[in-house]
Amino acid sequence: MSKIRVGINGYGTIGKRIADAVARMPDMELVGVVKVTPDYGYLVAEQKGISVYTVKDRIDKFRGKGFKVEGTIEDLLEQVDIIVDATPGGYGSYYKEKYYDELIIKGKLKAIYQGGEKPDVADISFNSYCNAEEALEANSIRVVSCNTTGLLRAICVLNNAYGIEKVRATIIRRAADPKEDKRGPVNSIKLNPPKIPSHHALDVKTVIPNIDIETAAVIVPTTLMHVHSVYMVLKTRVDRDEIIDELSSYNRIVVIDAEKTGIDSTAKIVESARDLLRPRYDIPELIIWKDSIFTRENELWFLQAVHQESIVVPENIDAIRGLARTDGYPDKSIRLTDSVLGMGKFLG
Amino acid sequence: MSKIRVGINGYGTIGKRIADAVARMPDMELVGVVKVTPDYGYLVAEQKGISVYTVKDRIDKFRGKGFKVEGTIEDLLEQVDIIVDATPGGYGSYYKEKYYDELIIKGKLKAIYQGGEKPDVADISFNSYCNAEEALEANSIRVVSCNTTGLLRAICVLNNAYGIEKVRATIIRRAADPKEDKRGPVNSIKLNPPKIPSHHALDVKTVIPNIDIETAAVIVPTTLMHVHSVYMVLKTRVDRDEIIDELSSYNRIVVIDAEKTGIDSTAKIVESARDLLRPRYDIPELIIWKDSIFTRENELWFLQAVHQESIVVPENIDAIRGLARTDGYPDKSIRLTDSVLGMGKFLG
Repeated sequence: MSKIRVGINGYGTIGKRIADAVARMPDMELVGVVKVTPDYGYLVAEQKGISVYTVKDRIDKFRGKGFKVEGTIEDLLEQVDIIVDATPGGYGSYYKEKYYDELIIKGKLKAIYQGGEKPDVADISFNSYCNAEEALEANSIRVVSCNTTGLLRAICVLNNAYGIEKVRATIIRRAADPKEDKRGPVNSIKLNPPKIPSHHALDVKTVIPNIDIETAAVIVPTTLMHVHSVYMVLKTRVDRDEIIDELSSYNRIVVIDAEKTGIDSTAKIVESARDLLRPRYDIPELIIWKDSIFTRENELWFLQAVHQESIVVPENIDAIRGLARTDGYPDKSIRLTDSVLGMGKFLG
Repeated sequence: MSKIRVGINGYGTIGKRIADAVARMPDMELVGVVKVTPDYGYLVAEQKGISVYTVKDRIDKFRGKGFKVEGTIEDLLEQVDIIVDATPGGYGSYYKEKYYDELIIKGKLKAIYQGGEKPDVADISFNSYCNAEEALEANSIRVVSCNTTGLLRAICVLNNAYGIEKVRATIIRRAADPKEDKRGPVNSIKLNPPKIPSHHALDVKTVIPNIDIETAAVIVPTTLMHVHSVYMVLKTRVDRDEIIDELSSYNRIVVIDAEKTGIDSTAKIVESARDLLRPRYDIPELIIWKDSIFTRENELWFLQAVHQESIVVPENIDAIRGLARTDGYPDKSIRLTDSVLGMGKFLG
């Protein structure tokens, strides 16, 4: 069978990770990536043997630095089945209108967008544990943001197993990604927004509309991971051990024991991933602290950590196979993604 | 009427603030403070005209630096009605046994401890909005910690007005006080502890034993204030505006409007306090963000900020008057404390 030909528009935090993941998938071919800025990212791509494309009016800027481009974004789009848009939040809808939509209408292209875009950019918003099947009917997919992906993994697993009455979660966001040297706060806790609910609750509902969820969100001065305090009321009373078993049965959720391992902070999670020699120390799994899992009657409460740079990567890979109508999707796709990316093999 | 004679043991973050507050109270006399380390704090006290005492075996250390001490802790205790212990957490019980208890039993002294001590250090644990009357029967009082004080102010006001079914709060703690240059984390979110509940729920129950409360707590890299995400279920459905009016009617709770004022972070609260030329930029009020107040059916949820260095100061002042059996305590005491400290006059 021929491979799914994939292009990536944008080679930033998310795009470069999806590019590496696509390159590792046995059923996919990474045709190339689109970059608009001729910086060190070009050199990284070149060293990895990845073809770089750009937009027409940037070609000279790349050539001026001696950076070789394969062609324009139009040239790339002609050669791919699926474009993964990983441009900065809000740019996706610009590229959609200018480049993708005409090809999509002609049946020559399908598109994936990231969570920074508005929901109406795509046919569906997506998470592999929630609504994977819907991808088979879609020509475009929006993979929701890192925080929403983290919430959805836990929520959909628990909702499918036990039924959720309502979710009330507090999101403690990292201020900036490690590479960002301009963003803050440096020494403050900032309400983001100062009102409840934050947009995360709305974003969860773009994937599972019927859930009763509200969220509060603050930003804190750290770059490593988000932490969520997830309080929920289940439809039935469930034994704590049963919940731990259920959560642990998914490759994309890792339940860690802080007392046993000493891992009681995002810094220690990251140090473990570095010691395990994970690529870029990425942690695409949702990390749930076993010790924090609190149950009483129908109440369930726990603390979880989300690696903002990598958690959406497996969902993007699955979304590609859904749009490509791959045989055995979604179950086979999820298994293949997990197997190639080594999902779930985190200190256990 | 003669003034209440007060001594302070410990001249650190809390002790120095209580000392300044006592000195400002018309019905109190600050007899002196006890210090065990001859450092810049001595020079500050001297410049303010505050008498400094120490323990016997430290006298030479002070004299060696040319620092004049009035005498020993025993000398101070002979001259005061009330000792406020503000020594580092855990030391209070040492001083209690070694110095205070004998005088308390003789009826010559009463003692106040801080929240870093275990509850059994004193006859009662205390918050002015919760159990002020109990101070009249006590010979020693423990003023609970900053986070617990912040929680209790909101909880007792709301519980008295409407009745609380349960509280589920997430506490986002500052990592260190501004002066501390050794503590972290620097770039991490640390679970403190990794389990639910954290000790804060237990500490709230030392003051109001019958409340159903559980808490989760994390530490984040900031020095300014704690932030709490306080989710609760009330016994009845209450109108949001009514809740805002109720909270706003207390001097020790300030409801701020983030949209109107632009104050959406702890950094901006602190900058406002600096601009208002508050002593040390202290904010002894509990700050609740109006915009965050969320109600649905019996649910109530809001975000609040706690200035860890100063929030317990008014409670310590009230506790002194309770132990001194002052006429009109507690209402008159609370009014006098608030009036002298300018409580509630924060951007409104």
